[in-house]
Amino acid sequence: MTLELYHAEPVANSMKVLICLKEKGIDFVSHYVDLHRFEQHEPWFVAINPNGQVPALIHDGHVITESTVIMEYLDDVFPATALRPVDSVDRARMRILNKFIDETVMPSVSIHAWRRMVPRIVAHIGKEQWERLLARIPLKEQQDKWRAAAADAFPEQELAEATRRVGIAAERFERILARSPWLAGSNFSLADVNAYAHANMAPRLFPELMNARATPRWLDWIERMRARPGVSAAHAMPDRTDPRVRLAR
Amino acid sequence: MTLELYHAEPVANSMKVLICLKEKGIDFVSHYVDLHRFEQHEPWFVAINPNGQVPALIHDGHVITESTVIMEYLDDVFPATALRPVDSVDRARMRILNKFIDETVMPSVSIHAWRRMVPRIVAHIGKEQWERLLARIPLKEQQDKWRAAAADAFPEQELAEATRRVGIAAERFERILARSPWLAGSNFSLADVNAYAHANMAPRLFPELMNARATPRWLDWIERMRARPGVSAAHAMPDRTDPRVRLAR
Repeated sequence: MTLELYHAEPVANSMKVLICLKEKGIDFVSHYVDLHRFEQHEPWFVAINPNGQVPALIHDGHVITESTVIMEYLDDVFPATALRPVDSVDRARMRILNKFIDETVMPSVSIHAWRRMVPRIVAHIGKEQWERLLARIPLKEQQDKWRAAAADAFPEQELAEATRRVGIAAERFERILARSPWLAGSNFSLADVNAYAHANMAPRLFPELMNARATPRWLDWIERMRARPGVSAAHAMPDRTDPRVRLAR
Repeated sequence: MTLELYHAEPVANSMKVLICLKEKGIDFVSHYVDLHRFEQHEPWFVAINPNGQVPALIHDGHVITESTVIMEYLDDVFPATALRPVDSVDRARMRILNKFIDETVMPSVSIHAWRRMVPRIVAHIGKEQWERLLARIPLKEQQDKWRAAAADAFPEQELAEATRRVGIAAERFERILARSPWLAGSNFSLADVNAYAHANMAPRLFPELMNARATPRWLDWIERMRARPGVSAAHAMPDRTDPRVRLAR
């Protein structure tokens, strides 16, 4: 059995899979992909994932992509220390939340994070080289997103809509955590991993929406997440972000 | 055990769940929700699904929403006539495709279908009543979509991008069907159900992208899907679409 993970810093989509592996205590070969050098768009990596996105898991020669799918795959293949509820209704709740996080929370937090971070990354790259880097991004929608972020050209309306959606998420998570200790019931699950990976820094990015008064349960949940050995082991993975482009985390 | 499904015509998201129930031969109580009268936004239905969207499943008092999640739930709870691959790698492929269909195919086909259909629905509604109907739509993004569709105001760029994505899907499905008879391997699965429900009419909506020359395998797959008893039983569910607003299917 060989298990190899291509991943970046313990942040966002890479963090989801790193937390699952650490929570389950599964050994794996780590391959760091440097997003600040755009290694995810280099031919050697596109040969692994044609979409040019991390994380990508290789298990016994099979490539699995899409971080939410990788999480379910790991729980299918390594069922010990289950990360999905046994109860089917709770399992459905977990999947409903994962869809909401993937389709609403992740893009909304991401557009604001990119807006702050990408201009700093691109500041150190010449114009011609940047055009060459853009041209090799496999997904047109990702190409458009990088281009807009680098030029600080996300439409105001889009940024405002993303902020509104973060507010919806804050209310939804708070409401759920009033009923149960974890997002999909009485046990920690993949919904918690997904939400944490994309929104653990949200109180810093959106202090007006997530704070001790508006979302006390969410802040408490973040502390309980950080205290988990698997989560802190994921945080301890190497972070090679250039300090010039690092966001406070 | 009581199993109740709130659904509309056997089209799109409602069709996904109807096909699963018919393929599995599971009895259920059918509650028709008339989308042309906007019943999905009425208080009695919003009490069932706060998002005001069909389908919604009620199983022993538990409400399950999100058609892709409902499909997995039905396969969890009624494992006979499994609709998910046993092999974990194929199961991951199924989920990768379901994400692609939910996030890319469905919205891209939908914007073009809405553009053709919604103005015909709204033509029979007075302006004041229409504003009242819009105001009660729970999700702001759905409200925006209904408003834009009714006014035929989807930006040209957005429509063109949706068409481009349908083209990407056509190529991807064709490539997969060159390797295996069904979308997630050697057996029919939830990925086939999802793709069929959202794209079985795509060759009529996008004849330049899906046709006998460009996508022969896709057309053959549609015929094989239609020949399945579960799929044809789903098609035979009542269709109460007002003939004035019906799209050729």
